[in-house]
Amino acid sequence: MPMDYRSQLAFLEDSLSERGIDIAGVKERLKKQQIETPSWGYADSGTRFGVFYQPGAAVTIQEKLEDAAQVHKFTGIAPSVALHVLWDLTGDPDEVKACAESLGMRIGSINPNVFQDQDYKLGSVTNENPQIRKKALQHILDSIDLGRRLGSKVLSLWFADGTNYPGQGDFRRRKAWLTEALQTAHNAMPEDMVMLIEYKFFEPGFYHTDIADWGMAAAFARAAGPRAKVLVDLGHHAPSTNIEHIVAFLLDERMLGGFHFNNRKYGDDDLTVGSINPYELFLIYCELAAAETEPNAPKIEYMVDQSANLKPKIEDMIQTILALQTAYCKALIVDRKTLRQAQQDGDIVTAERVLQEAFFTDVEPLLKAVREEMGIDPDPLTAFRKSGYLEKISRERGIRRGSGGLGQS
Amino acid sequence: MPMDYRSQLAFLEDSLSERGIDIAGVKERLKKQQIETPSWGYADSGTRFGVFYQPGAAVTIQEKLEDAAQVHKFTGIAPSVALHVLWDLTGDPDEVKACAESLGMRIGSINPNVFQDQDYKLGSVTNENPQIRKKALQHILDSIDLGRRLGSKVLSLWFADGTNYPGQGDFRRRKAWLTEALQTAHNAMPEDMVMLIEYKFFEPGFYHTDIADWGMAAAFARAAGPRAKVLVDLGHHAPSTNIEHIVAFLLDERMLGGFHFNNRKYGDDDLTVGSINPYELFLIYCELAAAETEPNAPKIEYMVDQSANLKPKIEDMIQTILALQTAYCKALIVDRKTLRQAQQDGDIVTAERVLQEAFFTDVEPLLKAVREEMGIDPDPLTAFRKSGYLEKISRERGIRRGSGGLGQS
Amino acid sequence: MPMDYRSQLAFLEDSLSERGIDIAGVKERLKKQQIETPSWGYADSGTRFGVFYQPGAAVTIQEKLEDAAQVHKFTGIAPSVALHVLWDLTGDPDEVKACAESLGMRIGSINPNVFQDQDYKLGSVTNENPQIRKKALQHILDSIDLGRRLGSKVLSLWFADGTNYPGQGDFRRRKAWLTEALQTAHNAMPEDMVMLIEYKFFEPGFYHTDIADWGMAAAFARAAGPRAKVLVDLGHHAPSTNIEHIVAFLLDERMLGGFHFNNRKYGDDDLTVGSINPYELFLIYCELAAAETEPNAPKIEYMVDQSANLKPKIEDMIQTILALQTAYCKALIVDRKTLRQAQQDGDIVTAERVLQEAFFTDVEPLLKAVREEMGIDPDPLTAFRKSGYLEKISRERGIRRGSGGLGQS
Amino acid sequence: MPMDYRSQLAFLEDSLSERGIDIAGVKERLKKQQIETPSWGYADSGTRFGVFYQPGAAVTIQEKLEDAAQVHKFTGIAPSVALHVLWDLTGDPDEVKACAESLGMRIGSINPNVFQDQDYKLGSVTNENPQIRKKALQHILDSIDLGRRLGSKVLSLWFADGTNYPGQGDFRRRKAWLTEALQTAHNAMPEDMVMLIEYKFFEPGFYHTDIADWGMAAAFARAAGPRAKVLVDLGHHAPSTNIEHIVAFLLDERMLGGFHFNNRKYGDDDLTVGSINPYELFLIYCELAAAETEPNAPKIEYMVDQSANLKPKIEDMIQTILALQTAYCKALIVDRKTLRQAQQDGDIVTAERVLQEAFFTDVEPLLKAVREEMGIDPDPLTAFRKSGYLEKISRERGIRRGSGGLGQS
Repeated sequence: MPMDYRSQLAFLEDSLSERGIDIAGVKERLKKQQIETPSWGYADSGTRFGVFYQPGAAVTIQEKLEDAAQVHKFTGIAPSVALHVLWDLTGDPDEVKACAESLGMRIGSINPNVFQDQDYKLGSVTNENPQIRKKALQHILDSIDLGRRLGSKVLSLWFADGTNYPGQGDFRRRKAWLTEALQTAHNAMPEDMVMLIEYKFFEPGFYHTDIADWGMAAAFARAAGPRAKVLVDLGHHAPSTNIEHIVAFLLDERMLGGFHFNNRKYGDDDLTVGSINPYELFLIYCELAAAETEPNAPKIEYMVDQSANLKPKIEDMIQTILALQTAYCKALIVDRKTLRQAQQDGDIVTAERVLQEAFFTDVEPLLKAVREEMGIDPDPLTAFRKSGYLEKISRERGIRRGSGGLGQS
Repeated sequence: MPMDYRSQLAFLEDSLSERGIDIAGVKERLKKQQIETPSWGYADSGTRFGVFYQPGAAVTIQEKLEDAAQVHKFTGIAPSVALHVLWDLTGDPDEVKACAESLGMRIGSINPNVFQDQDYKLGSVTNENPQIRKKALQHILDSIDLGRRLGSKVLSLWFADGTNYPGQGDFRRRKAWLTEALQTAHNAMPEDMVMLIEYKFFEPGFYHTDIADWGMAAAFARAAGPRAKVLVDLGHHAPSTNIEHIVAFLLDERMLGGFHFNNRKYGDDDLTVGSINPYELFLIYCELAAAETEPNAPKIEYMVDQSANLKPKIEDMIQTILALQTAYCKALIVDRKTLRQAQQDGDIVTAERVLQEAFFTDVEPLLKAVREEMGIDPDPLTAFRKSGYLEKISRERGIRRGSGGLGQS
Repeated sequence: MPMDYRSQLAFLEDSLSERGIDIAGVKERLKKQQIETPSWGYADSGTRFGVFYQPGAAVTIQEKLEDAAQVHKFTGIAPSVALHVLWDLTGDPDEVKACAESLGMRIGSINPNVFQDQDYKLGSVTNENPQIRKKALQHILDSIDLGRRLGSKVLSLWFADGTNYPGQGDFRRRKAWLTEALQTAHNAMPEDMVMLIEYKFFEPGFYHTDIADWGMAAAFARAAGPRAKVLVDLGHHAPSTNIEHIVAFLLDERMLGGFHFNNRKYGDDDLTVGSINPYELFLIYCELAAAETEPNAPKIEYMVDQSANLKPKIEDMIQTILALQTAYCKALIVDRKTLRQAQQDGDIVTAERVLQEAFFTDVEPLLKAVREEMGIDPDPLTAFRKSGYLEKISRERGIRRGSGGLGQS
Repeated sequence: MPMDYRSQLAFLEDSLSERGIDIAGVKERLKKQQIETPSWGYADSGTRFGVFYQPGAAVTIQEKLEDAAQVHKFTGIAPSVALHVLWDLTGDPDEVKACAESLGMRIGSINPNVFQDQDYKLGSVTNENPQIRKKALQHILDSIDLGRRLGSKVLSLWFADGTNYPGQGDFRRRKAWLTEALQTAHNAMPEDMVMLIEYKFFEPGFYHTDIADWGMAAAFARAAGPRAKVLVDLGHHAPSTNIEHIVAFLLDERMLGGFHFNNRKYGDDDLTVGSINPYELFLIYCELAAAETEPNAPKIEYMVDQSANLKPKIEDMIQTILALQTAYCKALIVDRKTLRQAQQDGDIVTAERVLQEAFFTDVEPLLKAVREEMGIDPDPLTAFRKSGYLEKISRERGIRRGSGGLGQS
């Protein structure tokens, strides 16, 4: 009910003004927010126990782009798509680019895949076998070329490399090989491309992972070259880890390059963003929002990486985009002046209250206004549901097994 | 070198005798140890990121039984095989039984599968849809019939049932449905069959699992009936959990029914038994060995459940059987009299030292002697490697994709 | 600004009515909510690294009651105080009772202390030494007598009993002793007293804790007698544990007796309720609110147990009470009809959205109205700050070391 | 029984020679091993729930040095003592030095204390208050001076700095202050002094710790200066963390400075080394032993940091030293040639078996021989127990409360 939210909006704006929030500025920043969705987020996925196939789940890169375009159409802030070289770029890359452009979308990060080929059983660029190391590196170099051709500015690297047993591999020899590969790749990148290095606590390696935490990712990035930065995936930490602290630390070291957003309760659960601990997401955004206004603010890639094994994929992605928009908005309305004063006064209660006040503010009226100003429906999820798109693709595409995503060999 | 170990054995026996250990008794108990291996442990398996196929990995139930027979041949203590209804019993069960018997093997526990069918996307016996609940229950009832026909005395139940998001399911309605199904199944079991109920902390449910811990499994078992007991899988606990304490507690409550042995560092990693924390395995066996000599000692099913995604499967299984034999042997040579006295004296240092002394004793000479007395090679892994079996099946069976194990949809 | 919130309230009420929420009923239930605060929450506390003393922190039981009365005065829903036998009841219990009554407060649960005496180094009721077991049990029996005299209906039992090293204690002998003590205590309780048995994952025992999880607490409670129930402390679980699931399970088993509320990120951090993961708190309350309306709804003790090591203690306690009120209110406005329908339809997105909608609703206007109707200030924390009470006690009481709380030997 | 172990030794030496182990070399390296014990490890300690006082526990620095000298006397490899500035160096430092020397001991690392003073409630060098930051830095500078005077070459820095609540502190301002303090301290150190920077996952900060992981410690060390390195405390990681991987990584980066050895099951439990997971300790030593033989091998400080809250302190320390000696010895007898070949062949089973073979070798005969060659008793713990020292100090010193260690305010 548009009328409702506009009346509520007036109250909200009054209340925010009282806290000294520049509402026009907040709206401006919200309109500039951009989140990249992953092509593989539209394909069937599962766990090692199996894949539950969804009617209409995308199989071809064209379908993935079409679905991503729907997410952008209804949210307005998801204009680019991350591509997975092995799954998406088996044909003519120019066609992929043209397809994206025809849908009003942009090609985002390029993700090589050096974990699925049988040769990588005991490692890709960390393999004891120099032929396999070479093959893996070549795939990365090819991906850089593809990225150049597609206009991508981001090479996003995740390595499944690790071991399952003590003794299986030599940590330090593997580290040297990984460093060498990253340096070669860095040198091959065009000047305007960045390399994002992802870390992960465990899985599929169950004893060690070669890039196990942000500290290792940062060390590899420094060794690789100046355009290599760290990618933070919210599901890739040990239990209880304070992620917002790591984000702040990386920002401060100028080593934060981007995100893979998702949420988790246990391991790398790849759930909808904000579904388990929305307050943590807000606290992460508080660091990001603060850093944005600094001189020389770093360029950060905001990307989603999640697997809707049970939820309808496009709806899940819309939920995620909305959760990121909401978290960002709440971070933008933090009364930072009062926060800082409370910190200086050692008034923990007030400092915490400032954050909670922002977090518990119902910002939906403001977001609805922003959406309307951007020319989209104020309630994206409902609008998508009403659009009939899901029914259409379910009918047209049907259920197709083996479309090549996680959990599908 | 037989001579070596026999001389060492004399020293070991002297030293154990000094500690008051009844060596003949220890050997007797070691010869009675029996571990069940799972049919699916011989098939290809993987993670959600893919499966690495092994030459010679078993596909048919006949091949799985043949491979299991090799493990038994070289270890002497693995005479039975757990069957997986969906993967192994698609043909004539009598043929499976005959095949096992012809190999000198026994059919062990029967494992229904109510997680792989597309219908079970939102739960099996906890599904909101009564038709699906009925279908899942029917599969369990059919499995009981199969078990009866195969001479199995153990119905082993693992439910993947759980949810990924708050609100997705109603914890308590699901609990009622699960209870009802278990009661019906319990009533359908022959008098000499036991039902083992497995719990799991997470995966594939990433928000909640309907049987999440031993306490829930025990509650369901009590509700199901007197022949329902709890199955402990070593990989199904929260980080840092003291598993030996849970084992002791379940023993004391007379609710411990069996084990799925494996090892883990992070989640449900399904690694070789004893590969990450062998001391923990020893401490678990200390509880088991103590309970064995009690009046009315409970019957416990010792089963393996692991996935050698990288190691050759039969070798991995032999390693596991040996690790269980070693842990048991070390638990049998604990100087319990001194331990108890130290506990009574509040002498923590001595109590701990008694355990460590047993754990760090090199029991290989004793185990080798036991193996020779059982008519098998004193070094099972080396003997298996020398046998040429792996080369033979690699050659004859080759690599075959899609043989139907974990990670294969 | 009362005017503001009343206008907002109208919008809120409209919106809730549309969702089918009975606003009068919600208000009625909110007015009946009662939370017990702990006497020790008003005394200085710290970690093993030291205690930071606060001006005005309570030392005597009279001061603790006065401070608790302030929390009740400003929140209206904290009318009772948990007492700690060793710290609070060293003098005449009748005087304590009279003091509480004169302040308009009630004596709540009685908490024996069998962990601080030097005799309990190796256990209290699980000690190998029968004299120490007897002494610990006697203290509990004395506490029951004190409770009877003070009109308390709740015996709240937390045991620090556990071990630091493998071998230090015998799990099962200790279990038998603990069971025996609980049975004796249960038999000694008056008919209208309940026994709450608390569990804890670790600390101060670092190898095992005799009551390590809810399953053990429930087993001990069943063994103790019909009036023994389980107490859930939100900080006493392994990392990642789904607490709301445990709460639902205990409710369903009719074994849930009460709560110790606090929040944690790592171990038993004893932080302000709702400060780390407010969504989890809401999900717990969703289970509690649902169970309240069942026939034969169980009586549950809602208690706080936290240590404000850094925050001013009374302010921290007010924050906590407000967080509990807010979580309860949000749980009361969940659109349960739509939730259930979505669950039945397998519509995960809608089910989750129903919960998120309630969680993200700004219920402050409603809570303010409830407070005003209860005759208290709509903004309790600000009102307390303005009252000058903290300045008064800081001035009058000053800083006094060694007032006997956590972290103080 | 010396005869026994010597006969066993012959077998062991034969077996090791067969594996290609240079036994004389192993013995040489074992004799050079040196572990530093902490003065505070001899004083009473406890948890926040209380301290259990031990008869004879050291109070004065003289007593602590005497007790440490006993550990060295019976183990032969613990010749230095870490000092805690606030607890140990309140009097004349020259007297402390003279006392140590008269006992045949050396002063080891100097540990400033910037966490116990009431001023540090909200941080030391990260405090918003510049006066408190200055005071904390001054204490560190004073500690450097003390270290210079005492001949110490190691400044060991642990900061309790952190926060309990979101918003309490600004991560990045605090990071800048910490960096500044470390740089100033680094500049003040004599040329031959190293600075070790310790990290910790949590406690006493329960929301964030300013140096939370090895990555942060390494970043601070790099910012501080070339003689700043990372200190790894085995109890300061998230659950499940692969510590040996971190050790290898730091070695490779030339950023590993030293260790605080202890063991843990849950949080920072400060248990006896090797008591929970001895295999993990062995794997850590495998990395250390390998790095020792490299050209330009780094100098690493091997220190113990643990709190025997329940065990007799000197016995606990001897157990710990023996556990470290045993782990080192086992790492030295790894058949590295076979290990490397197995890694190159992708033979995981053999690689793992090489490690397990070394770990499960009973090296006591070899260690006993080494001890005898060093002129000490082959069974240090038994010899200490027989010496009557504990009885003597228990009698002479008695039980004294409040001697100033962990858990004592």
